[in-house]
Amino acid sequence: MNDSRKRTPRIEILFTGSELLEGHPNTHQNYLCLRLKNAGFSVVRATTVPDDQAAIASSIRDWALYSDALIVCGGLGPTFDDLSREAASEALKRPLVYHPEIFKKIKTRFSRFRLPIPKENKKQAYVLKGAEIIDNPRGSAPGQMLEIARKNNIPQALFLLPGPFAEMSPLFEGVVLPRLNLLYGRNFAESLSLHLSGIMESSADEKLSPLVRAFKDKAQFTILGLAAQVDFHVSVKGKTAEEASQVMRKLKAAIFKKVGAFVFGEGEDTLECALGRELSRTKKTLAVAESCTAGGLSSRLTAVPGSSDYFLGGIISYSNDIKKGLLGVRSETLSKFGAVSSKCAIEMAEGVRQKMNSSVGISVTGIAGPGGGSAKKPVGLAYVGLAGFAPKPFAHELHLSGDRDTVRKRAIAWALHFALRALNEL
Amino acid sequence: MNDSRKRTPRIEILFTGSELLEGHPNTHQNYLCLRLKNAGFSVVRATTVPDDQAAIASSIRDWALYSDALIVCGGLGPTFDDLSREAASEALKRPLVYHPEIFKKIKTRFSRFRLPIPKENKKQAYVLKGAEIIDNPRGSAPGQMLEIARKNNIPQALFLLPGPFAEMSPLFEGVVLPRLNLLYGRNFAESLSLHLSGIMESSADEKLSPLVRAFKDKAQFTILGLAAQVDFHVSVKGKTAEEASQVMRKLKAAIFKKVGAFVFGEGEDTLECALGRELSRTKKTLAVAESCTAGGLSSRLTAVPGSSDYFLGGIISYSNDIKKGLLGVRSETLSKFGAVSSKCAIEMAEGVRQKMNSSVGISVTGIAGPGGGSAKKPVGLAYVGLAGFAPKPFAHELHLSGDRDTVRKRAIAWALHFALRALNEL
Repeated sequence: MNDSRKRTPRIEILFTGSELLEGHPNTHQNYLCLRLKNAGFSVVRATTVPDDQAAIASSIRDWALYSDALIVCGGLGPTFDDLSREAASEALKRPLVYHPEIFKKIKTRFSRFRLPIPKENKKQAYVLKGAEIIDNPRGSAPGQMLEIARKNNIPQALFLLPGPFAEMSPLFEGVVLPRLNLLYGRNFAESLSLHLSGIMESSADEKLSPLVRAFKDKAQFTILGLAAQVDFHVSVKGKTAEEASQVMRKLKAAIFKKVGAFVFGEGEDTLECALGRELSRTKKTLAVAESCTAGGLSSRLTAVPGSSDYFLGGIISYSNDIKKGLLGVRSETLSKFGAVSSKCAIEMAEGVRQKMNSSVGISVTGIAGPGGGSAKKPVGLAYVGLAGFAPKPFAHELHLSGDRDTVRKRAIAWALHFALRALNEL
Repeated sequence: MNDSRKRTPRIEILFTGSELLEGHPNTHQNYLCLRLKNAGFSVVRATTVPDDQAAIASSIRDWALYSDALIVCGGLGPTFDDLSREAASEALKRPLVYHPEIFKKIKTRFSRFRLPIPKENKKQAYVLKGAEIIDNPRGSAPGQMLEIARKNNIPQALFLLPGPFAEMSPLFEGVVLPRLNLLYGRNFAESLSLHLSGIMESSADEKLSPLVRAFKDKAQFTILGLAAQVDFHVSVKGKTAEEASQVMRKLKAAIFKKVGAFVFGEGEDTLECALGRELSRTKKTLAVAESCTAGGLSSRLTAVPGSSDYFLGGIISYSNDIKKGLLGVRSETLSKFGAVSSKCAIEMAEGVRQKMNSSVGISVTGIAGPGGGSAKKPVGLAYVGLAGFAPKPFAHELHLSGDRDTVRKRAIAWALHFALRALNEL
């Protein structure tokens, strides 16, 4: 067993392409990171540089110091701005060798498409001295793969892959990933994403830090605060699949002991999905009355395919006339307590429930800003009303920060959280 | 004039966040690259590293050799995996200094939300020695800005920015970009973003390419297709402010000659803002009836501050009972033509207009998928109904592609476009 098996293999990715630094999204990065993570590798750096030989060479030069394997995507085409081959040669001080059999293949390819072959394509037949050629059935540029040995016996591997996704991904899946597994004897990994609501990021952190410390040699942790939601990502590794899953079982139990009361889902789960499941489980239908969020809550609820099974509809009551006329909010409530009040939220929730004949009703009313706030009722004040969840309708008060958009998003997330919790308690 | 004026300033961006190397898309990178490009800067490297102090420090250590300014996004939060401050201190061999006034602000912030302050937040009050503090009104972690001088007289600047987009972007726009302009004595530049609707990206491209060719030495162009919208970004440079603005005037006139009929706004303008202006100009109020978009259209309309002046409210009619009971859609319409039909869209728009007593009504009904489609009415079929815009209500038919979320977003954007065009014609 070589040394590399003792720790997680460190993989680095380099993307070349000026367009990626001018606002074009880099979809390759998400794909490669996800695939490598799921295969138990750790991506320790992802770098994007323009189509510039010195920049590419500089990133390749650093590689052996920083990571075990470097995957370079792009820069293998035939044009003046395809410079990865030349840059690798410069960085590693290795000459490029002309391979006539590659050029022959390119010629055959072009003749198949009945095209004359531009002389620029000849550069695609140059390969780093000592590198293996990775056949690219979907394009003219073959990939390259170079292994060099490092002093401490961990193998070092460089992969040059073509940029277009349709060419890159089969080479990655078919050649690069199997080779990485072979070279680095692959740890077994398990990962877990937990979603919490009803807890602040810093409180979750306080509760979880002892675990992070206790498992620091066996697991990696990330904590992420979203609107009314905290995500906790964990990945563990082991020499065998059994070891990894055993560590994960222990860790998961420990996490649930600390914050289990706040966990609403795992993986791809969302608050609106969790609420939908609870509505289905309790056989309830839902209607929504929205003021400041103006359709945003309904929109999020119905992002779930199949939500029409429990979601009947909603009323957006921006004006007081509509609150009164369609939702049955009493004039006295509006004049005495105002539209942004616990009482109004309760009447809105109850009103929409009756109007739409649903089992439960949720309402949101608040001040999203930037205007409309006062000393007594500042921007960010909001109420979530819940009807049909308990014998009597009730409301929660919120004090939210952020701009108009953020206040609205947070109010929506809290409304989902409160409704979910109220259903859980049924 | 210092040396930096002679060449394009080199900007580098560093993103910290393990989740970005585990498959989460990095939306910040596109945004920052596009903004920097339009401002005339050159992004020479974008790097992503995990929440690991050594990795962050290593990237910061390299910076001064490679680029002029480094923008670090992320790692300023209060938790164990927020390490950018510590990493910068390690890399630059500069101590972190505790600023009690920052902690006081954080305490005030927490008390406003009636929350106890976790002790982890104290680390957010540490600032690199010699750095300026960048106030962050939307979050607890302030940004930091450090200038150091390099031998050849080109200034070197480091910016530490918070990770969440809503906190990062105002700090970038309000502080970082102006400071970069100040430091690197930019060429005089003018930029223009035009928003078009009612035209396909490829048609806009065809109409505009002669201009792109004609102005290629004086201007940079980006064309971006969004849902029912095409954005055209132009930036021009000149040795003097006068030269830049003269080129821009000419170019703008030429652009409007080609595609002026499709332009609805500039800069930060949006379709919902443009529609709001037209509603105000024509003194009309609006109500909305939504089926498949389920509140998304109302939510987008009310993203505009002050929209309560013209937006009265909406009805989300997911079930047919609500279409009939609240919107007055006729049973015969539903049984003969179905809920996804031109006739139903027209009755929904007219129904909500009457129910809410508004001058105009807009409706959307369609099949967002993934279920619910048929050979005759496939997923992506949608109708936008318009009432009060012309003597008789009418509807537009749409055939949209994409997943559930994309179909809904596109239907919303087209509804805004159709309503805007109908008002323009009044």
